[in-house]
Amino acid sequence: MIEHEKFMRLALENARATEGQTAPNPQVGSVLVKDGSIIGIGAHLKPGEPHAEVHALTMAGEKAKGATAYVTLEPCSHHGRTGPCAEALIHAGVKRVVIAALDPNPLVSGRGVALLENAGIEVIKGICEQEATQMNEVFNKYIVTKRPFVTLKAASTLDGKIATRTGSSKWITSDAAREDVHRLRHVNQAILVGVQTVIADDPQLNTRLPGGRSPIRIVLDSTLRIPEHARMLGDGEAPVYIFAGAQANLSKKQQLEDRGAKVFITRSERPSLAEVLDVLGGLEISSLLVEGGGEVHASFISQGLADKLVLYIAPKLVGGASAPGFIGGQGVSMMDQAIPLRDMQVEMLGPDLKLEGYFSK
Amino acid sequence: MIEHEKFMRLALENARATEGQTAPNPQVGSVLVKDGSIIGIGAHLKPGEPHAEVHALTMAGEKAKGATAYVTLEPCSHHGRTGPCAEALIHAGVKRVVIAALDPNPLVSGRGVALLENAGIEVIKGICEQEATQMNEVFNKYIVTKRPFVTLKAASTLDGKIATRTGSSKWITSDAAREDVHRLRHVNQAILVGVQTVIADDPQLNTRLPGGRSPIRIVLDSTLRIPEHARMLGDGEAPVYIFAGAQANLSKKQQLEDRGAKVFITRSERPSLAEVLDVLGGLEISSLLVEGGGEVHASFISQGLADKLVLYIAPKLVGGASAPGFIGGQGVSMMDQAIPLRDMQVEMLGPDLKLEGYFSK
Repeated sequence: MIEHEKFMRLALENARATEGQTAPNPQVGSVLVKDGSIIGIGAHLKPGEPHAEVHALTMAGEKAKGATAYVTLEPCSHHGRTGPCAEALIHAGVKRVVIAALDPNPLVSGRGVALLENAGIEVIKGICEQEATQMNEVFNKYIVTKRPFVTLKAASTLDGKIATRTGSSKWITSDAAREDVHRLRHVNQAILVGVQTVIADDPQLNTRLPGGRSPIRIVLDSTLRIPEHARMLGDGEAPVYIFAGAQANLSKKQQLEDRGAKVFITRSERPSLAEVLDVLGGLEISSLLVEGGGEVHASFISQGLADKLVLYIAPKLVGGASAPGFIGGQGVSMMDQAIPLRDMQVEMLGPDLKLEGYFSK
Repeated sequence: MIEHEKFMRLALENARATEGQTAPNPQVGSVLVKDGSIIGIGAHLKPGEPHAEVHALTMAGEKAKGATAYVTLEPCSHHGRTGPCAEALIHAGVKRVVIAALDPNPLVSGRGVALLENAGIEVIKGICEQEATQMNEVFNKYIVTKRPFVTLKAASTLDGKIATRTGSSKWITSDAAREDVHRLRHVNQAILVGVQTVIADDPQLNTRLPGGRSPIRIVLDSTLRIPEHARMLGDGEAPVYIFAGAQANLSKKQQLEDRGAKVFITRSERPSLAEVLDVLGGLEISSLLVEGGGEVHASFISQGLADKLVLYIAPKLVGGASAPGFIGGQGVSMMDQAIPLRDMQVEMLGPDLKLEGYFSK
């Protein structure tokens, strides 16, 4: 069992290293082992390219016969852009397959295992399952719901404030935390703000890291109040998608499209968040980082549409009953209705705290 | 050096174990070592009883001659309730004294060292100094300022709220965090709340732990609005001190004193916090736990009278712009005026986080 974990951890490490480059596919790693020696290593690197098992089998060549294959995700059983990996493993003659997590898609989950077992291959499941599942939290949600995995990001003081009573907000957190935000942007395909943030801060919402990819910028803007010369409209960093309500001014829409933005006019007066997520999912956007305002965060939370919270807390106090917090809105009425977060993790980032937790489904 | 640290850590462990029982004296531990063997162990256990070094010397007896003494705090040079420890060490014939922290009182700091060195004893300073200083943070402040060390305690949600918009607040944190609050009460000599907390919750503010000591209950109550039948007035758990303003009703004062409370009428309309701290200091209360309300906390912070913050954070969200946070008041105007906390420490307490940090002086 320890041996299985050792090799599975190597497969996980390789899979983790592909963070941000496999979407809309999951991150998957694979290791082939024979007589205690590693004979093949693979990871899925990019959509359209071979799956992890195929790379590992290629590296192993003839030696794959009789080997044990470690895979972080159940080998696929369907003919997608590449052939089914379960068949490739059977064809190569491996004698045993060790799997961390089953396929999250209920339509195909377990089929890869069945194919392997029907071919007489021993299958061991559940080694490092939790790590493997969490690594693909984005894919796991998207494949089932066709909506992006939604991460709310906020940076607050120790007393939960994102600005003082006068609106002053620069800067709350340290350089280390702000750099981590750019890593978050790098691994998310899209980033969402309310138009008020664009009006107030004129942000670019790009990824300022060497080699970083900037996410698609999404602006919620019921009446198309976004300034025509907002920086993000002309910077060429990444597309800008604006979601407006049914009453939006069509000549402003044309102006914005002339500036390169894509404007979606929704059916309701204010774009519903569920509708926005459906549209993004339809565009194969599987991960969305919400850098609200407190009101935008409150809307996602109260509608049960948030999956994860990433909160940076600076060791300082602002005080003031009227200074805005990172969750606005009405809030819950009774303490026992408070929204719980599970699987909380804490780390220090320079002087700041980084907290991550999940909303329950 | 490693050897020195090893023995000093044992002295520190013994000193730490006396938490809550030495006030208004500091916690001090001592170890006597000769030829690599421990020949004496001591700690200051209770005011009026021998100092740590004296216990250790007693245990060692004749063997103390030629030994090395480890002491977490500079041996005293004055004739207090007991004789000066520096002289006792000289008299016993130790050849070396290793000291963690110098005496924090600027009037006597360094005098013990000078006495020892003048007697030809080698003195080594600064071994485990930071731990020793932090252990006596209460004493160190009190001995210099004659005011109690002030710890603000709050329990909030992840978004900094201490209640929902309707005032619902039960319960925010887990049993583990609430039990830790009782340990905080045990080690503080007094606990302070605003009268509004007494009116709203009718708390006892006692220490509900086996063997726990309950702190003196301090209520800020400008106009003596405290209910005559408040539970803390009749429970006999610990004294109740009420600080009222100059206009307080004298017959209500008499009623409350008949119920066993001590009522202090201050010169100003509302008792000033500085005046309250001076009175408490004069009564040899060296540690004060403030279990505010957001307004009480905000007053301590804005007047620069808080020393430490202990914050329990539950992994849940309440939301709501009008739900009260743990720091109320006006708050600062600009983000760069935010009150910084230093030496932040974080630990998990069951599902909750416990954060501790210090206000800068």
